[in-house]
Amino acid sequence: MDTIKYVLTENQMPKAWYNIQADLPQALPPVLNPATGKPITPDELLPLFPLALIEQEVSQQRWIEIPDAVRSIYCQWRPTPLYRARRLEQALDTPAKIYYKYEGVSPSGSHKPNTAVAQAYYNKQAGVKKLTTETGAGQWGSSLAFAGALFGLEVLVYMVKVSYQQKPYRRALMETYGARVVASPSTQTQAGREILAQNPNSNGSLGIAISEAVEVAAADEQTKYALGSVLNHVLLHQTVIGQEALTQLEMAGDYPDIVIGCTGGGSNFAGIAFPFLGAKLRGERDIQVIAVEPAACPSLTRGKYAYDFGDTAHLTPLTKMHTLGSSFVPEGIHAGGLRYHGMAPLVSHIVNLGLVESRAEYQLACFAAGLTFARAEGILPAPEANHAVKATIDQALLCKQEGRSKTILFNLCGHGHFDMQAYIDYQAGRLVDTEYSAEEVAMALAGLPVVDS
Amino acid sequence: MDTIKYVLTENQMPKAWYNIQADLPQALPPVLNPATGKPITPDELLPLFPLALIEQEVSQQRWIEIPDAVRSIYCQWRPTPLYRARRLEQALDTPAKIYYKYEGVSPSGSHKPNTAVAQAYYNKQAGVKKLTTETGAGQWGSSLAFAGALFGLEVLVYMVKVSYQQKPYRRALMETYGARVVASPSTQTQAGREILAQNPNSNGSLGIAISEAVEVAAADEQTKYALGSVLNHVLLHQTVIGQEALTQLEMAGDYPDIVIGCTGGGSNFAGIAFPFLGAKLRGERDIQVIAVEPAACPSLTRGKYAYDFGDTAHLTPLTKMHTLGSSFVPEGIHAGGLRYHGMAPLVSHIVNLGLVESRAEYQLACFAAGLTFARAEGILPAPEANHAVKATIDQALLCKQEGRSKTILFNLCGHGHFDMQAYIDYQAGRLVDTEYSAEEVAMALAGLPVVDS
Repeated sequence: MDTIKYVLTENQMPKAWYNIQADLPQALPPVLNPATGKPITPDELLPLFPLALIEQEVSQQRWIEIPDAVRSIYCQWRPTPLYRARRLEQALDTPAKIYYKYEGVSPSGSHKPNTAVAQAYYNKQAGVKKLTTETGAGQWGSSLAFAGALFGLEVLVYMVKVSYQQKPYRRALMETYGARVVASPSTQTQAGREILAQNPNSNGSLGIAISEAVEVAAADEQTKYALGSVLNHVLLHQTVIGQEALTQLEMAGDYPDIVIGCTGGGSNFAGIAFPFLGAKLRGERDIQVIAVEPAACPSLTRGKYAYDFGDTAHLTPLTKMHTLGSSFVPEGIHAGGLRYHGMAPLVSHIVNLGLVESRAEYQLACFAAGLTFARAEGILPAPEANHAVKATIDQALLCKQEGRSKTILFNLCGHGHFDMQAYIDYQAGRLVDTEYSAEEVAMALAGLPVVDS
Repeated sequence: MDTIKYVLTENQMPKAWYNIQADLPQALPPVLNPATGKPITPDELLPLFPLALIEQEVSQQRWIEIPDAVRSIYCQWRPTPLYRARRLEQALDTPAKIYYKYEGVSPSGSHKPNTAVAQAYYNKQAGVKKLTTETGAGQWGSSLAFAGALFGLEVLVYMVKVSYQQKPYRRALMETYGARVVASPSTQTQAGREILAQNPNSNGSLGIAISEAVEVAAADEQTKYALGSVLNHVLLHQTVIGQEALTQLEMAGDYPDIVIGCTGGGSNFAGIAFPFLGAKLRGERDIQVIAVEPAACPSLTRGKYAYDFGDTAHLTPLTKMHTLGSSFVPEGIHAGGLRYHGMAPLVSHIVNLGLVESRAEYQLACFAAGLTFARAEGILPAPEANHAVKATIDQALLCKQEGRSKTILFNLCGHGHFDMQAYIDYQAGRLVDTEYSAEEVAMALAGLPVVDS
């Protein structure tokens, strides 16, 4: 009983991204200009993004064609394999069928190049010379560095300081691709200097790094900003994952009862889940969808669905999302890609509509699940992906307990080759779980901006 | 002009391994028992290897069927992609066509599982409970750890001490798969204790680690020894690489003028080259074949083709091979997988017959080539693979200079995700090249055993 791989040809790779906005029963709340409280206009976003991406951000079209130049690059690693994890099923002795889509085969090792390549392409088309961005664990930064190298774009990455120090190898990968990497908060920006003035030892956060990258992009006409998650167009680009999985499951003669994704900013989750949620919204097939976040950064499960800033220095517009407050700095857990104070507005909206269940998992239990997975399937998951593995194993064991089979699909969004220190620390018993008290969460939320809407 | 991927279906995966012994114009010199100077009998190898592998070691059959259980596991990552490196061609502005086979998609990130899985399978079939082995950079150790986890075999890895210290992440990967890893030389074996008595600060070498692993396996009936390269059956298992490449190049409507592989023990080189050399030996197609080794461990280019021990403590039989002497301890260069004093007898024999050109490259030039490759193709090669990249770029630039196109194929035998410290050191200018004087090489060779044959 070995793991089975379902492979698609290049011709079976999606020709369009799926835009879930076309199928929503209620429109997404508008993005607001914090100065006026009014919905923001596409024009106001032009200093940060090329027009094509702004159009995708607000598009209500169900299908948005993938440019040939982007598909041609995707073809290097896409379609990615879908696996039936029969060795894991055996190890768990479960009647459940477990499938996983594996995005770790991309050059930078995660799902992030799906949007990095698209964003680099549209920026290049618009005559942009340089991109700034933030990165946590470095999966996004290295993906944009890779995409920048392909299109001849300069890439400047503000890397959350704690990751900059903990993950020198991710940084080296970005530099190998030719990007410049700066620890955030830095003294290069107003936003960074202000944070350092308040706290010279700041570990940084994604919110702070976003402020720095946005500030630099806004100040120079030939420089734009690229975000690795959260925004609608980023989630859109990731839907190739779920679309491929749909086709591959069809090959397997199966359809999932449950779809599971880990979620930090929301792009990996959206990538696997939105195509299935679209079918649900159109009344074609029902499905249970689970979003898994870290207990140490519980925006969906303990945050508030409210308007908030995307960054710490309040340089971004206001978006309605599940948030812990833009000043919230999560503990330095090892799933650095899931350490964001907010959540994608689209994911938040869909959770709010009751279409998705969310749950929070502790990192120790997630690493234990990752080890079980690695020994059965051979692939070492990234700490972020371990959250999805944990929830999958839980569901599979529930099936065993209830004596019934379900079909479970999750996205293995990246490998853990750059996260070995986390595995060492876990196996040496040096990792701890973080829990915030109700008071701490309430305090973080107290700073939310007041918005009439 | 993007990189093109050639994908095979599972049905196109080879059903048999190719045994080049069937096509050799002269038989391989026999393996000798050092005590008697007589050819060794299969029986004498039984304490170390299961019978099925010993039979493969000496088989003269051209095709040896791959067991279904092994093919079924191969299917998780095989057939591996073949790429036409058009972005690299563009970066070099060469008329040459460059193809690379990519083995980094395996769970442990290199070609090594091709033989690890086969060896674990045959040992399991023979009732073996535990495998011992050596590892340098850790690619082999982690592959055997992975294979052991699949078959429920205990795995004990003697890891060359300098790598054990330099590469804690490779070690962590082995431990994640459930293997036990010991720094070599260790105090657990007679061989290790003797080395430590002579030099308590010994950095270790593959030759020493082999001695330790062999000693432990020989002492226990349920324990056998597994080697990651050098032996005929190991090279045999790797021929799936070249066979797949042949089919993929046929899809591309091409045939290589030049095949290039890096070579330490010889298994990656044999894997890509032997199927093409077979066609040459059978008079079907001519081809230029280049074996690339590190200048810091130049067994093919500066060693002697002579009978020598495979290990430092002289526990192995004598094989005729290109060797620098079993006491030779190469500098701690970063291509740890290429730091072996000898060379596979089959590769040595074929080089000696004049069928293969060999050349040695310095590590600085290899890292420079690796950076060029990573920026063009997005995949970060292992330091070992950079040797093949370097020779490939040289050939492609020669084509440019001569104004003619050639088709070049090389094996990208693994990714460099666990070798980031090497890339950091290289980019920081901290790496140096090692050159041995003629006197040093002569001194190393002076200790070769005297054998009548």
